[in-house]
Amino acid sequence: MVMDTKPAAHPTLVKGLHNRWHPDIPPIATVKPGDVFKLECVDWTGAQIGNNDYSDDIRDVDLTKVHNLSGPIAVEGAEPGDVLVVDILDVRPFDDMQWGYTGIFELTNGGGLFAKEFNSHACKAIWDFEGIYATSRHVPGVRFAGVSHPGLIGTAPSAELLATWNKREGELIAAHEGAVPAVAFPPEPRGAYVGQDLDAKVMEKISREGARTIPGREHGGNCDIKNLSRGSRCYFPVFVKGANLSVGDLHFSQGDGELSFCGAIEMAGVITFNTSIIKGGIEKFAMKQPIFLPSPIDPMYSAKLIFEGISVDYHGDGKQYNMDATVAYKQAALNAIAYLQKLGYTREQAYILLSAAPIESHVGAIVDSPNACVTLALPLGIFEHDILPKPEGLTKQDYGQCAIRSDGIV
Amino acid sequence: MVMDTKPAAHPTLVKGLHNRWHPDIPPIATVKPGDVFKLECVDWTGAQIGNNDYSDDIRDVDLTKVHNLSGPIAVEGAEPGDVLVVDILDVRPFDDMQWGYTGIFELTNGGGLFAKEFNSHACKAIWDFEGIYATSRHVPGVRFAGVSHPGLIGTAPSAELLATWNKREGELIAAHEGAVPAVAFPPEPRGAYVGQDLDAKVMEKISREGARTIPGREHGGNCDIKNLSRGSRCYFPVFVKGANLSVGDLHFSQGDGELSFCGAIEMAGVITFNTSIIKGGIEKFAMKQPIFLPSPIDPMYSAKLIFEGISVDYHGDGKQYNMDATVAYKQAALNAIAYLQKLGYTREQAYILLSAAPIESHVGAIVDSPNACVTLALPLGIFEHDILPKPEGLTKQDYGQCAIRSDGIV
Amino acid sequence: MVMDTKPAAHPTLVKGLHNRWHPDIPPIATVKPGDVFKLECVDWTGAQIGNNDYSDDIRDVDLTKVHNLSGPIAVEGAEPGDVLVVDILDVRPFDDMQWGYTGIFELTNGGGLFAKEFNSHACKAIWDFEGIYATSRHVPGVRFAGVSHPGLIGTAPSAELLATWNKREGELIAAHEGAVPAVAFPPEPRGAYVGQDLDAKVMEKISREGARTIPGREHGGNCDIKNLSRGSRCYFPVFVKGANLSVGDLHFSQGDGELSFCGAIEMAGVITFNTSIIKGGIEKFAMKQPIFLPSPIDPMYSAKLIFEGISVDYHGDGKQYNMDATVAYKQAALNAIAYLQKLGYTREQAYILLSAAPIESHVGAIVDSPNACVTLALPLGIFEHDILPKPEGLTKQDYGQCAIRSDGIV
Amino acid sequence: MVMDTKPAAHPTLVKGLHNRWHPDIPPIATVKPGDVFKLECVDWTGAQIGNNDYSDDIRDVDLTKVHNLSGPIAVEGAEPGDVLVVDILDVRPFDDMQWGYTGIFELTNGGGLFAKEFNSHACKAIWDFEGIYATSRHVPGVRFAGVSHPGLIGTAPSAELLATWNKREGELIAAHEGAVPAVAFPPEPRGAYVGQDLDAKVMEKISREGARTIPGREHGGNCDIKNLSRGSRCYFPVFVKGANLSVGDLHFSQGDGELSFCGAIEMAGVITFNTSIIKGGIEKFAMKQPIFLPSPIDPMYSAKLIFEGISVDYHGDGKQYNMDATVAYKQAALNAIAYLQKLGYTREQAYILLSAAPIESHVGAIVDSPNACVTLALPLGIFEHDILPKPEGLTKQDYGQCAIRSDGIV
Repeated sequence: MVMDTKPAAHPTLVKGLHNRWHPDIPPIATVKPGDVFKLECVDWTGAQIGNNDYSDDIRDVDLTKVHNLSGPIAVEGAEPGDVLVVDILDVRPFDDMQWGYTGIFELTNGGGLFAKEFNSHACKAIWDFEGIYATSRHVPGVRFAGVSHPGLIGTAPSAELLATWNKREGELIAAHEGAVPAVAFPPEPRGAYVGQDLDAKVMEKISREGARTIPGREHGGNCDIKNLSRGSRCYFPVFVKGANLSVGDLHFSQGDGELSFCGAIEMAGVITFNTSIIKGGIEKFAMKQPIFLPSPIDPMYSAKLIFEGISVDYHGDGKQYNMDATVAYKQAALNAIAYLQKLGYTREQAYILLSAAPIESHVGAIVDSPNACVTLALPLGIFEHDILPKPEGLTKQDYGQCAIRSDGIV
Repeated sequence: MVMDTKPAAHPTLVKGLHNRWHPDIPPIATVKPGDVFKLECVDWTGAQIGNNDYSDDIRDVDLTKVHNLSGPIAVEGAEPGDVLVVDILDVRPFDDMQWGYTGIFELTNGGGLFAKEFNSHACKAIWDFEGIYATSRHVPGVRFAGVSHPGLIGTAPSAELLATWNKREGELIAAHEGAVPAVAFPPEPRGAYVGQDLDAKVMEKISREGARTIPGREHGGNCDIKNLSRGSRCYFPVFVKGANLSVGDLHFSQGDGELSFCGAIEMAGVITFNTSIIKGGIEKFAMKQPIFLPSPIDPMYSAKLIFEGISVDYHGDGKQYNMDATVAYKQAALNAIAYLQKLGYTREQAYILLSAAPIESHVGAIVDSPNACVTLALPLGIFEHDILPKPEGLTKQDYGQCAIRSDGIV
Repeated sequence: MVMDTKPAAHPTLVKGLHNRWHPDIPPIATVKPGDVFKLECVDWTGAQIGNNDYSDDIRDVDLTKVHNLSGPIAVEGAEPGDVLVVDILDVRPFDDMQWGYTGIFELTNGGGLFAKEFNSHACKAIWDFEGIYATSRHVPGVRFAGVSHPGLIGTAPSAELLATWNKREGELIAAHEGAVPAVAFPPEPRGAYVGQDLDAKVMEKISREGARTIPGREHGGNCDIKNLSRGSRCYFPVFVKGANLSVGDLHFSQGDGELSFCGAIEMAGVITFNTSIIKGGIEKFAMKQPIFLPSPIDPMYSAKLIFEGISVDYHGDGKQYNMDATVAYKQAALNAIAYLQKLGYTREQAYILLSAAPIESHVGAIVDSPNACVTLALPLGIFEHDILPKPEGLTKQDYGQCAIRSDGIV
Repeated sequence: MVMDTKPAAHPTLVKGLHNRWHPDIPPIATVKPGDVFKLECVDWTGAQIGNNDYSDDIRDVDLTKVHNLSGPIAVEGAEPGDVLVVDILDVRPFDDMQWGYTGIFELTNGGGLFAKEFNSHACKAIWDFEGIYATSRHVPGVRFAGVSHPGLIGTAPSAELLATWNKREGELIAAHEGAVPAVAFPPEPRGAYVGQDLDAKVMEKISREGARTIPGREHGGNCDIKNLSRGSRCYFPVFVKGANLSVGDLHFSQGDGELSFCGAIEMAGVITFNTSIIKGGIEKFAMKQPIFLPSPIDPMYSAKLIFEGISVDYHGDGKQYNMDATVAYKQAALNAIAYLQKLGYTREQAYILLSAAPIESHVGAIVDSPNACVTLALPLGIFEHDILPKPEGLTKQDYGQCAIRSDGIV
């Protein structure tokens, strides 16, 4: 079964697209356990970003319309309390669309991990796909195999679960009123979309209550785990009859952390699934969130250069944080960015590269008060040149710059 | 060169032991770059923990005396601003001490990641080493190859750096007055030790100012990164003449996170080093914290069961946190613990197992507001039984319990 | 660029197909270094084998018509003495042909490694592709990720090289007159095909002199190396102007050895290439045969059960061979087949499984006179059940039988 | 339990040494299943080779005295028909003997894979061990982690099995009378040794009938499989009461093939075992030769440069062989040697490096008549310099020469 969900350039795009989570979004199709089926997916923004050399489209992106998801697909026999087993059999770009992009958003429109630190302005890299590899005219000197995966995949929430989400996130928003970038996103009727012919009341309810798709939650969702890759087997808790699986935000590749937010190599393409059901699985496995088995074909780059970070903001004001792994991750990433700059990459290129390439980030230790320690590993095999630390220092090359705004502001 | 630092049972233990960071601790020896040398290390507590079946020693451990480090070793020619390259050539237990331990500390004496959640009381597992493998009578059903490494390794801080540490950590402590467990540890003359014949004034200064060894910091220190393993090459910033390398807290094995705090398989043993110097390396590599190349012989368990966690405390009060990777790590770990309990392990055994075995924890995504997502992977190959999710559920076995207090309190 | 070489079912199949090696076969197209291009390939037999449950088509296969190759493609600027660098960017089945087959040939028509030992009659397994995985209704109980690759890829021989091949192979044939199966295959006008409008004299010459495609040779050719997989980079010696690259015999998966001869999962599909040229590379790299860099995404199954074999025919007449790695390989494979039979697979299923799944075979030692030692590794992760040796023995299941001849002869 | 088998320099060397296979060699000790025990091993020659810079000791080595084995060890309860499970828990050099050697033997005394092709004269490389790594002053520019393992390990043959060996090997010798190097080695009383106080008649029988230890056979023996490494689990058929396990020929590292015969990094050291018994295992597993599970800590070098070889002697007289994997292996190795010479290594250094480093050799295809295809992979990570093929060719460096004879003959 192939859903009719090709990107905007394709005239048939409508059915199955939606961009909110809500139990009342009806399934667009029902599959039986054991059926192999494909879903076509637009990129997460719905084709707002073009294959060109300016980042104006990133600057102007309308985030009320994200993420564009395909589905929901109901699985025959699935009921609340069950576990839906989903084999992600393949993920690949459309044959006639062998490119993707990584973006750095504006501080005031989308943000990203270092939006404040870098006072971010829109940047972009276009990646060309050559079979399993990606290269970019905007980030020269690297070539890597993609860990292709859906950034976003999950089952539909029940009404109760949805209410829980909206309540707890609303409280966080209230506690950080006016934060830039925002700390979370409440339901937002503007931009809400369900590509089905729904009763107006139903659509209004979905628009008013539907959870935004930005964060991952108990049902999966936008977890952006690079290892939910083609070949993996995932176990999702079921909250509504039929499970109602939705998927989108396909990534050709992504680093652990996806730090620039639009940090994966975002693409449009096709994903292939098979499913089965484990009755009563939530109780059987004490499951509060998805679990999964990784793929045997994730790229293997055994040689790595690893950066450490602790929960002290030593790249900023030197403040000591209390066992904060997020701060530690940021330091490790900033250390890697500084290193890449010594090799000649601009800060923006380095930021994009860490987001898009198959970097790995491990939690080192999370108990040595007050410092969490996080590592970030650059695979050596993705670089055309030897980047190892040498007694004579690093060789700086000119790699140009990534795509920036047409007004020249970086 | 073999330092004379065998554990307490060995009468010659003295020279080279110390348990604070301070620039005035003199090197006990000087090596030339290129010299291969060995250092003997007691376990981090200084042999306070015994190979027995009760956890009273864990309950009563004196943490003012930790970590017991060996060194410092000066490297000829190293100066502030340089980078000290350290090859960790081997790490192994003493031939006549083929065992180690993992402990869960009391909430009020040492704590650990779930000290509050579990209202922790002292528990312990003794691990027996059989060549590269560890097994435990207190956690049956598993057997794994150790990623042996020093939990703690670093260069000596300069006086300025030490002052920075004490200042920033002091501010954190002040902001969390009375916290249990403590959020950080100020200099503490009680228990301070330097196994050298020092002038009393110098010793008093060290005791008064010396940084505690609990957290990792810019010089390395107690980072508890399991991949600083035998076979790795590490690059440390140099802050004092000679670099003054110290090491201790040897681990036979550890999981990413070391979540029970005394969570690695703690052991006494011997570490083998080689060093070289890169002049001006800090500037050359923009280095603010150590970097390293991992070992080619870290255990390879390709098949894994992976748990996800987000920054919502859904195992507790359901609170929404703001992009907090530490909270996300905790949920992933609690999900894994709940799963292991379905297999028949007690909560304490599961807590210890995740701490000690070669589990991997990745930062999934750290930009999808408000939820950081962290994963935790159980290698399937360490279990004697098949632990995969099955349609019929999990088979619960009786694995007994780990070592608990002699008064029976768990 | 997409060549027009779809399988027989596709009416446009003609241009670019050929099944002999000869310098006078003109290139069907010329590419520039750096061009990414695709070639469509029929399966090696040219669609003689069907997706059904009998092996009569295998029994009756016409081997004078193999291998069906696509090409040749000339690369602008390549000259004899150069090295042609070929990036194999992707290999995949046609979207509308998600299946492949593995065959055991008749002793008297095609043979195979154990054709004599087993007095082979035609057998077959059809494999269904689900994304990166293959399963078979004819070999139940296994599921594995394919190491997809071209079984056959190479540059065109010069007239001199071709003459050398024909001479040396002719001498071998002469020395083994009447051998069944044949030890080698001389030029054979019957069945020779070049899908181009050639002058009759040229075509006659090609038919008369053209080397058969069965063996690999100095130019590459039918090496059936599973690691020439998607993502690999290969270096071929160039013998004629333009290099004239041909490719075919696509495999969804194959084990080291491809022991049943038609032992890979044979498929029709599309291969994607990029090329570059190293001038004078043959001399620069002292190259007498291709070299290559393997792909980072070859499937990783770290847990394996490994069988040994030595150069004594202990499964047959017990004869001692002199350091013969082929005999050693055969024993290791026969040991694995016997083991798989204890699990319930038939001899034919086991033979097919070892041929098609990602098994690995290493040369252990090749100097311990008189016994070469070869190992063969079964990846545990491809089996649905635990196949490890257990104290209680192996659990025998009923896996049926593979597809056999309609007359029931096995 | 530690056997008293230290090398010649250690005065206590006697008990447990033996250098022939015979059922009448009594066990020197009996262990229970589950006992962890250690065996000390001299190097395979019995300390005939020294840590120096000439190869005269290699030239003059007395091969009637090899291999020096430690054991036999009886395992309580093992009987013919059973399988002995042996966990190889650790393998390491003596603490006070952190070096090993690789030798090329004379054509007329020991030979090796290329003894004839190279008209070999004695050469040698001494390797220094630094923790898990080996480096050599005789082969500069490389550093690698050792896959440490026993080259030789096996159970004692029954009288019947021994008779089979002597008969079949005798026939081969008879068929190649006068071959240099010899194709096999008959029982040889000269040099036979059993380090036990045996009745003279028994000793005479052992000397007269005892199988030489050079080849691997059905019981294991000198298989020189590098992956029987520390951490592996091996299953041996049992032919005599107690199984009578012997071990020796410890290798710090070895490449697949061990092509120079004394090609591993030969060392003296200690091996640690645990055992268990599977009753009737030979029948349960249809076992004709050992099987094993590899170790999770074998070195991982994912990036490799791979050479192909086919069964045509194109480095020699161009002869076509009939599906001969040994000939194919030789071509792949000769291709790699030629490549290494372009980098500046001498032929002898390259020969030694391929023998000693963790190279991998796979059987590519063994059914494409008449050419077997074998690959040989150089791990890139063991070289200090980038050895990849470059457009500008390879950079030739001066690596000197390995240790040669004091008379200068190479």
